[in-house]
Amino acid sequence: MHIGLVGLGKMGGNMRTRMRDGGVTVVGFDRNPDVSDVGSLEELVEALPSPKVVWVMVPAGDPTRETVRQLGELLGEGDLVVDGGNSKYTDDQLNAELLGAKGIGFVDCGVSGGVWGLQNGYALMCGGSDEDVAKVQPAFDALKPDEGGFVHAGKKPGAGHFAKMVHNGIEYAMMQSYAEGWELLEKVDLVDNVTEVFDSWRSGTVIRSWLLDLLVAAVEEDPHLDKIAGYAEDSGEGRWTVEAAIENAVPMHVIAASLFARFTSRQDDSPAMKAIAAMRNQFGGHAVHTEPPVGGDANPG
Amino acid sequence: MHIGLVGLGKMGGNMRTRMRDGGVTVVGFDRNPDVSDVGSLEELVEALPSPKVVWVMVPAGDPTRETVRQLGELLGEGDLVVDGGNSKYTDDQLNAELLGAKGIGFVDCGVSGGVWGLQNGYALMCGGSDEDVAKVQPAFDALKPDEGGFVHAGKKPGAGHFAKMVHNGIEYAMMQSYAEGWELLEKVDLVDNVTEVFDSWRSGTVIRSWLLDLLVAAVEEDPHLDKIAGYAEDSGEGRWTVEAAIENAVPMHVIAASLFARFTSRQDDSPAMKAIAAMRNQFGGHAVHTEPPVGGDANPG
Amino acid sequence: MHIGLVGLGKMGGNMRTRMRDGGVTVVGFDRNPDVSDVGSLEELVEALPSPKVVWVMVPAGDPTRETVRQLGELLGEGDLVVDGGNSKYTDDQLNAELLGAKGIGFVDCGVSGGVWGLQNGYALMCGGSDEDVAKVQPAFDALKPDEGGFVHAGKKPGAGHFAKMVHNGIEYAMMQSYAEGWELLEKVDLVDNVTEVFDSWRSGTVIRSWLLDLLVAAVEEDPHLDKIAGYAEDSGEGRWTVEAAIENAVPMHVIAASLFARFTSRQDDSPAMKAIAAMRNQFGGHAVHTEPPVGGDANPG
Amino acid sequence: MHIGLVGLGKMGGNMRTRMRDGGVTVVGFDRNPDVSDVGSLEELVEALPSPKVVWVMVPAGDPTRETVRQLGELLGEGDLVVDGGNSKYTDDQLNAELLGAKGIGFVDCGVSGGVWGLQNGYALMCGGSDEDVAKVQPAFDALKPDEGGFVHAGKKPGAGHFAKMVHNGIEYAMMQSYAEGWELLEKVDLVDNVTEVFDSWRSGTVIRSWLLDLLVAAVEEDPHLDKIAGYAEDSGEGRWTVEAAIENAVPMHVIAASLFARFTSRQDDSPAMKAIAAMRNQFGGHAVHTEPPVGGDANPG
Repeated sequence: MHIGLVGLGKMGGNMRTRMRDGGVTVVGFDRNPDVSDVGSLEELVEALPSPKVVWVMVPAGDPTRETVRQLGELLGEGDLVVDGGNSKYTDDQLNAELLGAKGIGFVDCGVSGGVWGLQNGYALMCGGSDEDVAKVQPAFDALKPDEGGFVHAGKKPGAGHFAKMVHNGIEYAMMQSYAEGWELLEKVDLVDNVTEVFDSWRSGTVIRSWLLDLLVAAVEEDPHLDKIAGYAEDSGEGRWTVEAAIENAVPMHVIAASLFARFTSRQDDSPAMKAIAAMRNQFGGHAVHTEPPVGGDANPG
Repeated sequence: MHIGLVGLGKMGGNMRTRMRDGGVTVVGFDRNPDVSDVGSLEELVEALPSPKVVWVMVPAGDPTRETVRQLGELLGEGDLVVDGGNSKYTDDQLNAELLGAKGIGFVDCGVSGGVWGLQNGYALMCGGSDEDVAKVQPAFDALKPDEGGFVHAGKKPGAGHFAKMVHNGIEYAMMQSYAEGWELLEKVDLVDNVTEVFDSWRSGTVIRSWLLDLLVAAVEEDPHLDKIAGYAEDSGEGRWTVEAAIENAVPMHVIAASLFARFTSRQDDSPAMKAIAAMRNQFGGHAVHTEPPVGGDANPG
Repeated sequence: MHIGLVGLGKMGGNMRTRMRDGGVTVVGFDRNPDVSDVGSLEELVEALPSPKVVWVMVPAGDPTRETVRQLGELLGEGDLVVDGGNSKYTDDQLNAELLGAKGIGFVDCGVSGGVWGLQNGYALMCGGSDEDVAKVQPAFDALKPDEGGFVHAGKKPGAGHFAKMVHNGIEYAMMQSYAEGWELLEKVDLVDNVTEVFDSWRSGTVIRSWLLDLLVAAVEEDPHLDKIAGYAEDSGEGRWTVEAAIENAVPMHVIAASLFARFTSRQDDSPAMKAIAAMRNQFGGHAVHTEPPVGGDANPG
Repeated sequence: MHIGLVGLGKMGGNMRTRMRDGGVTVVGFDRNPDVSDVGSLEELVEALPSPKVVWVMVPAGDPTRETVRQLGELLGEGDLVVDGGNSKYTDDQLNAELLGAKGIGFVDCGVSGGVWGLQNGYALMCGGSDEDVAKVQPAFDALKPDEGGFVHAGKKPGAGHFAKMVHNGIEYAMMQSYAEGWELLEKVDLVDNVTEVFDSWRSGTVIRSWLLDLLVAAVEEDPHLDKIAGYAEDSGEGRWTVEAAIENAVPMHVIAASLFARFTSRQDDSPAMKAIAAMRNQFGGHAVHTEPPVGGDANPG
């Protein structure tokens, strides 16, 4: 198979390598000429045999939308675009429509794997018609792990990114699950070696997982995580998962709480807690801390 | 009525005043001789006519337990102890048993009202037998607001403090409700005058309340609460409410979340969020922030 | 002042009455001829002196958008539309733009008060330019309570509905706060008369509020709420509040949890809990309930 | 090594087998004579060489406390009791004290593995002095998986059960994480084959885990879990985890929410949501559902 790949950053660059190792002929384009195979998007398109397949691997939002728009002008009937970035599923529906008007096919593909994907393979969740997915299958086969790790999630555009989005929502809450347990074990005086406890859980327990392996790797380097700030970004996908839950009236207590915990982690001070403190101060004079003697003060609030 | 009052701090002192204003004869004892009417607990007990009624208004936990123990030695059959502090309902059950073994009655009484109680009256929730509660009724009548504000919550010891405890749990969550709304309004660019919005809600809306009045008073002084840190203590009662919910298999999402928000507000950094950051760093190299160019990087995670 | 009012349902009908009682001349239109003053929207517009002011009080979403669109064709430069329905603030921005293109002003107004508004006045939160708001002020003054209850939340379209939306989000969480406390008190064996406890809280406590008054009214009729199903709809506003929080990275644990509790209340069975039960069954054979004898079974999970 | 094992239910019986397969000589006692090696606890103790080691594997709470009490009378200085059940860590502290007064050692051991433990090994988390733990090590080695799965969590009694307790708390929240994601995917119309999506996640994704394997096994049998009710018991450990968090002021949003979701799953109707419905009915007449026509009703609440 012959494929064009737009975007050769950390993800795209490794994916090019894995596709080539898997026998796919890849022509890559990136704005950074040091890593690019060709000088322009036009050259990339010209270099491909028809029907042309172009995999877009650039940041979600405007960059992806703009790249898809340009490809809509460069490609023609029977060609195909794959969006492998972290796009929102509603973007896919718009992109599929835009390209479909010109007879260009569209497949959306959520990609998981991070820096481990090159070696272990990428998990792929794609959406699109059977016919369009079939055209990309050799690339999917090269990218995915040896066993499993690929799913054609649905025939409508967005099905793949929706599945990947939910994956990320679950990921947030799983991480928060371990994190809360770790904090409690760190806090109590009873358990002497929290790192060993977490390490032991990697075998034989109900909660063994790859995320647990990662957490153990981290605490083995820095047992109390002294060098790491409790600050966590969130990608769009956690937010979209909760929004999709709200739209579909699905209760989502733990994924939402995990998302909110990340928001809190990025605040210097919490406006909400200022309001709490202000109310407490109004009704009970709680701002003044006094240590009452025996026979002294009781419940001011 | 004649009553002994142990503990003349901010709460006890004002309650002595309000009881006296209401026609109750009060003899007060406090370790602080400047405010105490007598020199010792023994003198207080001697000063009371039989059957003696002693209201304990000292901090919950050891101070209250110790005072009750001492009163158990000084009082006798037919006398009565009222615990008006913030004791846990399970303590009441122990105190009632201890005193009951000597024929001394026991009434537990949750008191709400804070610094406003002297003027407006204290809300009182008490537990104990009809007979015991009747003995204290003149004091309750003097303390409570003109209308309402008093309930005999149950005949078992602890019923009053349990009701007060739940009151405080509800209070936590109500405060958090306003606080979250306030934070959102402060954050968005759309609403020009958040203080006026909150003030307007005091009339005609579904959410008007005394807590809202307090919050408005606070933001009228300091519109963005710049002078207040987002730091909130919790009394034992919020914790006990959630524990009682757990023990009784009652789902308690919002009261628990409000309690946890207070815990978070007191942390310099969040150990849980360190763990999140550590895992993210392991799987995606997320610690390094890079701005990908168009045609650059996509979804490293 | 002379005003047109479109939509004479439960809310609109009462608002017409209150405006008239306040000295505003109102011409109302509704599809239901029994309550309508005129036969069509065209007649309503014709009946108004210039500059014409039309208050739209129809369901949010398509009905409001369609009514605004029609008014955009019937009104002219210098006229004004007020949207008093429960529209999303983003709709206001679109409506203001649509009307603004024709020189027609736009004010959005969140209205709270329900069935009590006719008697007590409606709380009003509006958005729009000073000039436009001034044109509607006599109507606002007639509708609002005697004291307070009106705010010009911001000059941008949507400010009023945004403030009302947050009001509703807070309302959800306040209701959930009382509801959780009520459930706990109902569940434990300790408190004999939960209704009296709640009633007593209406005086002197930190948690007194109008919502508490309503809950007391309900449990005085039906102490254990035997006649009411635990089923709660949600209007769009609770959802939009959480979505706005997510968009603005504002942690919103309790309002979100309150929304999710409503979703859960409407489910016959919980798909999520089916998944939990399925996992438990896989790892521990938890589907089979056996009572182990002493010397019998232990921790199968 | 020679060990006594009390309790030969589903867990204890399999553990006897695995210990024997691992070269440990086991004498087992159970009230059920069909599975018991000896006729009484006395016979079991007599059958052991000194220093005697007895592993207690009976239900937590009264059964375990009673068995430990009896062993305290039958064993002597230098002997040792292991509690491998699901005891609360605070029970361990009492048991260690009781036995310690007679010179009998005590080790607490949390055991995870369920029905899979016989084949794959049990994960073991133990607490106690180095000396005591060393006496049981051959049994631990026989029970644990080939690699890892054993930790000496701390030297104080209860350290092992505390670690196991937190493990279970994490487990609750991880299960809830997958469950919420599954519900959302089932609900939306976009993803055609949810089972395949979950199956694909088992390879190459961030969220691969043993729990995911179990969920996939379940949905492969019954794709929409039609045969399973959304009803989930909770063991004590989830509750104790949240209680320990509260006691230690550790925010625990997601584990607590997971616990509450289980409580909700077991309710026929939600008292809290009855209260919500009652308040809504009071303020807005929300009990009556009417479909307003265009030009009809708007925001009654």
